[in-house]
Amino acid sequence: MTIRKGFSPLLPMHTDIKVLAPMDYHTFRSGLATDKSGTDCIDPLPYFVPLIQSFEKLALGRYFWFILDFPKGKHCASGGDVDSLTPFTNERFSSLEQLQLHGVTHPEDLNKILAFSRFWIELYDGRRAMGDLKVTLFFRMLNALGDYYWIMVQYPEVIMNENYKIVYGLVLVTDISHIKSQGEPMMTILNQKEHICQQFYCLNANTLSQTEFTPPRLTRREKEILQLLTKGHGSKQIASLLHISTKTVDNHRQNMLHKTGSKSSSEMVSMGIRLGMV
Amino acid sequence: MTIRKGFSPLLPMHTDIKVLAPMDYHTFRSGLATDKSGTDCIDPLPYFVPLIQSFEKLALGRYFWFILDFPKGKHCASGGDVDSLTPFTNERFSSLEQLQLHGVTHPEDLNKILAFSRFWIELYDGRRAMGDLKVTLFFRMLNALGDYYWIMVQYPEVIMNENYKIVYGLVLVTDISHIKSQGEPMMTILNQKEHICQQFYCLNANTLSQTEFTPPRLTRREKEILQLLTKGHGSKQIASLLHISTKTVDNHRQNMLHKTGSKSSSEMVSMGIRLGMV
Repeated sequence: MTIRKGFSPLLPMHTDIKVLAPMDYHTFRSGLATDKSGTDCIDPLPYFVPLIQSFEKLALGRYFWFILDFPKGKHCASGGDVDSLTPFTNERFSSLEQLQLHGVTHPEDLNKILAFSRFWIELYDGRRAMGDLKVTLFFRMLNALGDYYWIMVQYPEVIMNENYKIVYGLVLVTDISHIKSQGEPMMTILNQKEHICQQFYCLNANTLSQTEFTPPRLTRREKEILQLLTKGHGSKQIASLLHISTKTVDNHRQNMLHKTGSKSSSEMVSMGIRLGMV
Repeated sequence: MTIRKGFSPLLPMHTDIKVLAPMDYHTFRSGLATDKSGTDCIDPLPYFVPLIQSFEKLALGRYFWFILDFPKGKHCASGGDVDSLTPFTNERFSSLEQLQLHGVTHPEDLNKILAFSRFWIELYDGRRAMGDLKVTLFFRMLNALGDYYWIMVQYPEVIMNENYKIVYGLVLVTDISHIKSQGEPMMTILNQKEHICQQFYCLNANTLSQTEFTPPRLTRREKEILQLLTKGHGSKQIASLLHISTKTVDNHRQNMLHKTGSKSSSEMVSMGIRLGMV
């Protein structure tokens, strides 16, 4: 019993090494596909489910997945081991802004990843047959304990609109810390049809400012307030304990919600604990 | 929309590095599961097909797959890019003896791979729930051009008999030469339930004799005969051209069929060309 598929025999894969310039978030977003014509009615999850079901058997290690709404730069579903592999709960993760995910990427890797991502998205843009292109990224991300670990990111399937712009992408993130523990972030693009493999590196990312994307940094006062919130105190009690006004406490709480991208104090407390801030 | 699955949050993976002694083929086979009770009537392919269909989207690079009949040490189906990623045609590969596959493993890696494989098979043996164990091997194999390249081997699904011995295993082999170009062969076993990752190395494999497993080595006379076979000459013509008897030519042909594990002269010629022997 034999089943055939694939390539002309005896044809080797040509490997080409490229260096990209690092990219900030503004440049990354500008010019990306924004038209979503005719796709508003689509729920992407059912389309991706059969493939999602095979992750458990094929992922190389612990993993999570999410569906990225490309025009909105926002997640619309997620699953797998989100709770331990990211600082977010799965519930929160499934509607996260892409910008917030960038906040948990290693600061040395972030602008390289943005450059890599822009490159492959532009390569896909307008391309009618993408099945022959395979994109894999390797970089470091924060886990629930606040430690960086190596992940491998794959985009096994995307949904395009009638203008061949990516609307939804299924993203598989695998913990490969048991296989890779050092080295540089990188990306490979395998063009299976033309037998070309491109490896991408970005060597000078530190020249860019990364303040926009670093994990939330709290002031000493904010940390004190967060600590008291974890103990169940309300604004009035905290004000009394710290000898400041209730209005000041509420101002600090608002600032912290904004900094951590949280919707509620509970989420902020949860993230604070996960990231070792309290 | 969120879908949950997985692990307790905040639990890190414990990594443990082990060193195994290299193992020869005889030791590898002895003591492995041989009972096949109640499975003779099973065709394993339909069971594995849904997973096989997801390989195209999830494999990290070019790939092939095969189903291994464990008790017989023999393939019973194969597909994907066998023709360029191995020295065999897919038709031949789908009924190959395991020993012949070992013949195209890098000689420095072979006895390490046998030790790794014996370890994981014994670990699975009698284990009722294997879904929580993930085995991945990394080593070098010959492609159709006769060059060694790095492969990643996964066993995403197995079929066990009523005594919980592995009868059929689905094997996915991925070309990872675009990601890995140097280093040591290794194996990782991820126990997802107990959050343990074991990394295996085998550092002294060269102390074992490997003559049994090296790719076929032809004598100068055999190569001459093979060369003439590729030009379409028969035994009688070859005998005349080389000034030897037809019987001697036929003896050489028989020996070569045996050495290369080929069923016909055509297959032997095809392998000879693929391996750069002529």
